[in-house]
Formats: sequence, C-alpha cells, structure tokens
Amino acid sequence: MARDIYILTETDLRHCVKLGPLTVNVIEEAFRLLAGGQVIMPPILSMQIPEAHGEVDVKTAYLPGLDGFAIKVSPGFFNNPKLGLASLSGLMIVLSAKTGLVEAVLLDNGYLTDVRTAAAGAVAARHLAPEIVETAGVLGTGAQARLQIEAAYLERKFRRVMVWGRKHEHSEACARDITAKLNVKAEAIADAGRVLRESQLVVTATAASEPIVKAEWLHPGLHITAMGSDQAEKNEIEPSALEQADLYVSDRVSQCEKLGELRAAHAAGLMNGKTPPELGEIIAGEKAGRRLQSDITICDLTGTGAQDTAIAIHALQAARTEGKGSVIKT
Amino acid sequence: MARDIYILTETDLRHCVKLGPLTVNVIEEAFRLLAGGQVIMPPILSMQIPEAHGEVDVKTAYLPGLDGFAIKVSPGFFNNPKLGLASLSGLMIVLSAKTGLVEAVLLDNGYLTDVRTAAAGAVAARHLAPEIVETAGVLGTGAQARLQIEAAYLERKFRRVMVWGRKHEHSEACARDITAKLNVKAEAIADAGRVLRESQLVVTATAASEPIVKAEWLHPGLHITAMGSDQAEKNEIEPSALEQADLYVSDRVSQCEKLGELRAAHAAGLMNGKTPPELGEIIAGEKAGRRLQSDITICDLTGTGAQDTAIAIHALQAARTEGKGSVIKT
Repeated sequence: MARDIYILTETDLRHCVKLGPLTVNVIEEAFRLLAGGQVIMPPILSMQIPEAHGEVDVKTAYLPGLDGFAIKVSPGFFNNPKLGLASLSGLMIVLSAKTGLVEAVLLDNGYLTDVRTAAAGAVAARHLAPEIVETAGVLGTGAQARLQIEAAYLERKFRRVMVWGRKHEHSEACARDITAKLNVKAEAIADAGRVLRESQLVVTATAASEPIVKAEWLHPGLHITAMGSDQAEKNEIEPSALEQADLYVSDRVSQCEKLGELRAAHAAGLMNGKTPPELGEIIAGEKAGRRLQSDITICDLTGTGAQDTAIAIHALQAARTEGKGSVIKT
Repeated sequence: MARDIYILTETDLRHCVKLGPLTVNVIEEAFRLLAGGQVIMPPILSMQIPEAHGEVDVKTAYLPGLDGFAIKVSPGFFNNPKLGLASLSGLMIVLSAKTGLVEAVLLDNGYLTDVRTAAAGAVAARHLAPEIVETAGVLGTGAQARLQIEAAYLERKFRRVMVWGRKHEHSEACARDITAKLNVKAEAIADAGRVLRESQLVVTATAASEPIVKAEWLHPGLHITAMGSDQAEKNEIEPSALEQADLYVSDRVSQCEKLGELRAAHAAGLMNGKTPPELGEIIAGEKAGRRLQSDITICDLTGTGAQDTAIAIHALQAARTEGKGSVIKT
C-alpha cells in the first residue's frame, strides 16, 4: 500500500525545534511518563567497532498516549575530527505506535539528541537547583557544555559562568561563545575545584573516565548535573560525593547502574542497598526533591529512549505544522 | 558538512535485489564471515508493545571488509491485517563503517529481510540437503513459505512440492502460487506428517509455539530448515528430533539458544553440553556438514544482523550502479 514517509533534514529540524521552554516541557513530560511505569524502554543496543574507533548506540521507548515512537541511531566515531567531521551523528526513525509502519526519517545528524540532552539538564535544574543561582559552572568545553549552560539559563538567571576544560584555549573559546549567546559574563577557569566551590549549579559534560569532581569540593547549596557518563567506562564524579550529597537522582536507575555515576559508586562499594529516586518521580511529586536551599543535590543523566521518542514526535508535529520536509512515496 | 544521503524505496529495492544466485552468494559470504570470528554482532534490541499487539526488533552487525554496516528495524504488528496492512514492515539504515555517517535509508518495508531470510534457506540447502531432492515440503503458507521453496529450488531441482498449513485453503493458495512461480507440481497436503515422510527437504516457516514436527517423522536422507522460530516463545520442532538428527546446525549458536529450536531443546533438558556447529563453519570447511546421503540434518535459522548488513550493502551498491533512488542533501 503506497504511503507517504516524511524525510526531515537537519536544516528542517533546526528550524522546527529549538532549545527553549516548549522543548524543556516536552522532555519534562517524558520523564514524568517514564517514572509512571507505563513507558516501555528496552536496554540500549550498543556496538563497538574498535578498528574504526567507533561505536553505535540504538535507543527506543514507547510512551503511552503518543501515536508514534522513535528509534534513535547514535554513532560516535572518534577519528572523525581528523577527517574534518563531527564525531557524533545519526538519525531518528518514527514508527506508528499502532501499526509499526515507518512514518518519518529525521536526518538530524545528532541535533535532536543535543537538544533533548540539554533539555534534560534544564529539567534537572528546574527541579533540583537552588532557587537562586548566582554563578553556574561547566566542566567540559564541547557543544554540549555550551548547550547545557544555555539550558540551565532557561531555568535560573545566573549572572556569571565559569568554564573549565583540560585545554585552557578551549575553555576560553567556550566562555566567549556563552557570553555571546546569553549576554552573561563567562570566564575560563584553570582550576576545576574553583568552579565547583564558587558555583551553585555545575554541569559536568566531559568524557572523563576518571573522576574530575572531588567530593571535598561539594558545598551547601550546590546542584550538580552529571551528564557526561553514558558508557560503563566513564566517570566524572568521585563516588563518595554521591553518598555525601543530600540527594542523588537518576534519570533511570537501571541505566545509571550500568552507565552512569551510580555504576562507579557501586563499583567503589558505595550507594548500595538503596534505590535512588528518578527525576520523573520528583517531577510527578512522588518523591521529594531539594528540601532546603542548602542541600547538595546531584542528578545523573545517562540519556533515555523516552527523551528520544518525546523529541522526535514533537519535531515531527512541528514539521508537519510548518510544512517542512520532503515526502517520499513508497 | 553537506552530504548526500540515498533514499531507496521498496520499488527501487525490488528492482535492484532479487532472490537469485547472486544474493544467495552474498548471504553465504556473510555466514562465512560470521563464523570467522571477526564479525561484531551485538544482541538484538527487542521491544514488545502489548497494547498494540506489536513488537519491534533492531539488528545490526559489522562485517570486516565492508565499507558500511546496516542497522535494521523490523516491526511486527499483528493487528495490521485487520486494517488491510501487512504485519511486518520496517527499514534498514546504512552507516559508513569508517565515520558512522548515514549513507542510505532503505525503505524496504521488510522486503530485504524477506530476501535475506529466504537466501539463508538456500545456503542451508546448498550445504546440508542431500544431493538429490525429489520432493520438497513446506510447513507454513505465508510469504516466507513461498520464498523458502523458491530459494531451495535455486539449489535443488525438486519435481514436487508438498504444502501444509493450518488452514487448508491457505495451503491450496500457496501451492498454486508455487506451481505458477516455479513450474513444479505443488500440492496442498492436510497431514504434516505425510509432508515430512515423503520429502527430502522440508522448510518450517510457521509462527508455531508448540512443535508441529514430530521426531517420529524423521527419516534417513531428510534435511529440515527450521526458520520460523525467532522469538523465545516459538518452537516448531519436537526437541528430541534435534538429538535424533545426525547433524544439528545453528545460524548463530548464541541466538539459537535464546530464540531458536535449540532453546526449546535446552528447556527440555536436551542438546546440553555440546556446542553445535554454525552454518558458517560448515561453509568455511571448518566443521563437517552432511556426511552421507542418508544423514538426517536440521538447520536452525533465527536470522542474523550479519545477513542484514550483507544484503543492505549489496542493495546499496546495486542501486548506485543502476542509478536508482533519490538523494537528500543534508
């Protein structure tokens, strides 16, 4: 039976989906549904291709109430920068939740992943950061470091940003970009400890395999969103920091145990015997979030298929409304 | 960086890829590589959506020597026939094995899966069926039953086909189609036991969850290709038949243990303590196939990501050569 399949390019998607309050609400709703127990989200399919220094992850989730679901293909090929290409790319497929038929192919080159990942940072800030954030910090200087600060700024109107990276010139470039984008004073800082000590909201957005955040740097009134670790070999936060915090929150406990900061904490013999709250449970009001402005909170984001389905369906609706994309007759 | 992505429709792909000797050779080579130990093939991602009576599987594999690899999305939504739609659909994505960038989207609605699955049946017949096959049998009356007989006929020029299905009118329709396609006398047979007893090559292509092939029906000089079981709840062959056969072969042992006839045999306490040969090991000459014309052989096909990558790359090359498909600039 002949059908129309929508093909949306990165250009179409950049036009239709922005990192803004609407997208943050879409992702917040995805977390709320995820915690509600009716989302179906199988484990990630992951394939390593060592000879190309590459990997590919496939994520999916079915969210009740949506008429479609996404399957996301995320390749990371780390020799690409030598070829003048981005390491991350990929696409999303949208299938009908009723018939399984392909409805759309979103050739986003990872753009929607960038946005839904940053939007999760905004959701974490919305529910966990202290009300007043004077200074925000970021460890990491990549595209996601910039987006995370932009996302956090949607929720907390900080006046200063501190940027730390392993290469100071990268920190400087990142700080310049943030200043240009947000009209907030951003500085490159050579000492990660200083970023932690002087900020009320810190995002870690690195690919570190050894902790870069020391537990001794935690202080009352700090919120950390740790979004770098999404593989079993990654670890950004010293495990004892998770125990020391007043509240540790997972995006998905079963994933964080395998891929997030919680994995490293368990490996260190910490955080055992208790099931931490999930972000969606806090959104839904089922579990408590930050209680006091002086609490120390950590949110561990590994990235969920629920976010992918939510943003893909949102993007497809926006593209249809705005008449974007091309149609393949099949 | 702007790039061209090929979009191929089912029509394009039906033009470029046929079930014939060339395709069978491509799939044979995939099995040979798979047994060579250098293929990377992660476990299948599988999601059930009970409220839509649907499921979706995602398979992938990296085959050394090919410049791309496929990710295949196979939905099966079993209320579709009520809506006048096929249960199975889906697509394949081809990514560069060097950069991970999306090279092509093959909107095949499951056509390439049909072909690569049938081609695996031909490979099994090539290496395991007795030299002389007078009569071929098939249990099942769906699209794959027809294709499996067509595939087997590429390898063994039988003169008679016996078709059994739960609904006799379906068997009759299937037999008519086979006669029209191959110009071989095909008959609908009401007794599955008779099909087994009178054939030298039998393909089981049903979704049975209880065995339909009884061990007592095995006879010297019989080859069975069991391709229906690809889920943990499926089972076409009585477990003791696997023990009784002179040779039991898996497409992939690790998959057949979870999804194939081997799973049911293990569950019955049979076939333990020995690792059966894989089809690719027999193709490569590393393990023995059929020794005597009187041997009884069973080949358990669950479907591998290696086949998907092989046929997708083959299809893409054919489409490029023939100038098929459209190009999206991204």
